[in-house]
Amino acid sequence: MRKILIASDHAGFELKQEIIEHLSEYKILDLGTVDEESVDYPDYAKKLCELVDDRSSGILICGTGIGMSIAANRFKYIRAALCTSALMAKFSREHNNANVLVLGARIIGKLTALSCVDSFLNTSFHGSKHQKRIDKL
Amino acid sequence: MRKILIASDHAGFELKQEIIEHLSEYKILDLGTVDEESVDYPDYAKKLCELVDDRSSGILICGTGIGMSIAANRFKYIRAALCTSALMAKFSREHNNANVLVLGARIIGKLTALSCVDSFLNTSFHGSKHQKRIDKL
Repeated sequence: MRKILIASDHAGFELKQEIIEHLSEYKILDLGTVDEESVDYPDYAKKLCELVDDRSSGILICGTGIGMSIAANRFKYIRAALCTSALMAKFSREHNNANVLVLGARIIGKLTALSCVDSFLNTSFHGSKHQKRIDKL
Repeated sequence: MRKILIASDHAGFELKQEIIEHLSEYKILDLGTVDEESVDYPDYAKKLCELVDDRSSGILICGTGIGMSIAANRFKYIRAALCTSALMAKFSREHNNANVLVLGARIIGKLTALSCVDSFLNTSFHGSKHQKRIDKL
């Protein structure tokens, strides 16, 4: 089974806990944060991105998802997709072979977030012409 | 007046032209693509990101915005924000001091896209605690 790494800042803490509960049948590594005390999102993006490998996927959450998506995509082997709908999460896998899903806890509701997670984890990369573009990243 | 650089792949071409028309009072540099023939988004992200400086902002468009946001954030001095609402665009400026707005032409409608552009161009960075986080990116 694919390992899921998850991390958030304070703004994403509550949603992170809800996603962990939702994914109870997966092997999850929770990299924090541990409560709603203010922290810096780049620290948590770094923690997670340094651990993502070919056999794992990541989920990062902050208030809007924007900070986390900037921070995560600084890493050469990370393709982090900020998604506000399950449709975007599906395309992020099919077209971009995204290995990190980024969510904005203050932008989308819990059910939308969980549908993004399900879509992200259950969709495969389509390859072909998309691989050529990924090779240029 | 702030210079605006804009680029898209084939999927974002039509929306790019609409944004250029909408921003007729700005100084715009259109970096292509020039029609709806299939191209690779990383080539256009690179073209634009290499030209963004302290006196300019960028707008990148592809089908979902995900590919462009991964490609653009590979550049150390770029903070590219994939936005699906004007609210996200506002926060991308206030909190992340984003210098590139990324839009998904197949995800949001024209009016939503134009409201993102207006919000992005008319909102200032809030500084303070957010700067500390940006310094870590």
